[in-house]
Amino acid sequence: MKDKIIFIGVIGGGAVSPQVASIAEEVGREIARQGAVLVCGGLGGVMQAACRGASNEGGLTIGILPGNSRLDANPYVKIPIVTGFGYARNVAVVKSAQAIIAIDGSYGTLSEIGHALQSGIPVIGLNTWSLSIDGKADDSIIIADSPKDAINKALELINNQP
Amino acid sequence: MKDKIIFIGVIGGGAVSPQVASIAEEVGREIARQGAVLVCGGLGGVMQAACRGASNEGGLTIGILPGNSRLDANPYVKIPIVTGFGYARNVAVVKSAQAIIAIDGSYGTLSEIGHALQSGIPVIGLNTWSLSIDGKADDSIIIADSPKDAINKALELINNQP
Amino acid sequence: MKDKIIFIGVIGGGAVSPQVASIAEEVGREIARQGAVLVCGGLGGVMQAACRGASNEGGLTIGILPGNSRLDANPYVKIPIVTGFGYARNVAVVKSAQAIIAIDGSYGTLSEIGHALQSGIPVIGLNTWSLSIDGKADDSIIIADSPKDAINKALELINNQP
Amino acid sequence: MKDKIIFIGVIGGGAVSPQVASIAEEVGREIARQGAVLVCGGLGGVMQAACRGASNEGGLTIGILPGNSRLDANPYVKIPIVTGFGYARNVAVVKSAQAIIAIDGSYGTLSEIGHALQSGIPVIGLNTWSLSIDGKADDSIIIADSPKDAINKALELINNQP
Repeated sequence: MKDKIIFIGVIGGGAVSPQVASIAEEVGREIARQGAVLVCGGLGGVMQAACRGASNEGGLTIGILPGNSRLDANPYVKIPIVTGFGYARNVAVVKSAQAIIAIDGSYGTLSEIGHALQSGIPVIGLNTWSLSIDGKADDSIIIADSPKDAINKALELINNQP
Repeated sequence: MKDKIIFIGVIGGGAVSPQVASIAEEVGREIARQGAVLVCGGLGGVMQAACRGASNEGGLTIGILPGNSRLDANPYVKIPIVTGFGYARNVAVVKSAQAIIAIDGSYGTLSEIGHALQSGIPVIGLNTWSLSIDGKADDSIIIADSPKDAINKALELINNQP
Repeated sequence: MKDKIIFIGVIGGGAVSPQVASIAEEVGREIARQGAVLVCGGLGGVMQAACRGASNEGGLTIGILPGNSRLDANPYVKIPIVTGFGYARNVAVVKSAQAIIAIDGSYGTLSEIGHALQSGIPVIGLNTWSLSIDGKADDSIIIADSPKDAINKALELINNQP
Repeated sequence: MKDKIIFIGVIGGGAVSPQVASIAEEVGREIARQGAVLVCGGLGGVMQAACRGASNEGGLTIGILPGNSRLDANPYVKIPIVTGFGYARNVAVVKSAQAIIAIDGSYGTLSEIGHALQSGIPVIGLNTWSLSIDGKADDSIIIADSPKDAINKALELINNQP
């Protein structure tokens, strides 16, 4: 039964502009509309906006927290996972998702992109980091042009996973 | 809203006798009957039996996995959290619960009891470890005499938490 | 070359009586006299006393810290490892040692004993926890009657490891 | 006393070209010549080449390993730290260093760059990732043009830290 539930991760900065929050909220709404579960780091900014969107559509939201208290979670997290691991919890955020949507982004988001790509978990980007290595562009981050496009791309990649 | 959901952890050996599995299954059933969410390490033995019990009563089950794949979860885990942290995930299992029920137990269970008591999370024991330090008994593990007694004690402790 | 260096872990409470500190300091001294490296959690109490003993004999001391700053280390730690993992760092403390000497002990120490025994790393106890499971004594912790006896037992076990 | 020892991290791919390995080895040599301790992830590629360079100059090398065995360390690691944390150990690699030198790089290296910049630990790059966010270049990675230049920049930054 668990294989039927789809888990989509949303990563992004803990403090963001209203415009970025609005994108994140729409990503959350669309995840819930598609019947998927939202996984995130459970704190503010992109995480809170995405959880708010998903929660308002009746979706399930998981927040994998760095600290020691479930009270650290934003008010739209339904399932707080309390790790006490600090930012090493970023690894669990990405591994618990089948695809990641990266929005805007801080250095913590960059670390999550690295962990996801290292683990073979697809990353879809909305206004986020772009990478080049030793002068050559790395196009591993799949660019989306809207929240809906991002979720569509995530679902297509997940459904094609072995 | 998240404050209203109660999270109870179940810890115990990954390979257990039918008698212990039967106790764990009844613990899981009773957690679900009380409307609480079951948190565990997501693997076999006590974890699988408790998840089966909770799942059969329609309860929500969370498995915080040590490895790198959601496929490691037992079939009764609805929400697999994939950490890749190895046995350090034991810390997240106990911290994500508001009270812990320890059944029988391996050395991994002993580590979880230590982490829970260190974090001030109450531990209720069913046929599990008992401790003494430097010759004096330590009675921090609250002894229950049945699965129902264990859940009652857990709920009472959680409801009295600040 | 690395195989020739012996790593012995010392675990115990972060706040201890002068008598326990004195035992820990002698354990540290003896580890250094035997040419082994001391591994510990890097903070106060047993950890600091053992590091002081080892350091005073010219030994190398490693402190695997839970927090985010090397300044958290006690002044006798030569090699601070900064994890940011919180108490999940207990796992790294025990896994980085080939044998563990447990002195007195808090619940954190209990978690480390559990992780060590789970990983097959021998634990030698000085005035520490004793365990029974479901009414039967578990004698996995090897009892030593002095610091010198503890190190001798640790070295013998390490030299017999495959 | 511990404040006087300088810890420099070296990060980079686990499988690299001879040219990159040669750069990493020279970085390791120069770290040892300057009396600093080399911290790395303890495995192959850039890590092994840097440890070989440092070791050949008589330097101290620390390898913070993802797995469960000290035997995973490359032969030039003098102090293996065994975490069992998987790639979450990347956090400990960067936090245990006062500055990081990134050479070439895989996605694991990218995660380490993210964790370092998030923690305020300076990153010096040799033929490594370059970043832009939402179309604007991010110049947080300090570019060096040779191994010697990289170590000089690292030492200068460390000596100016509060």
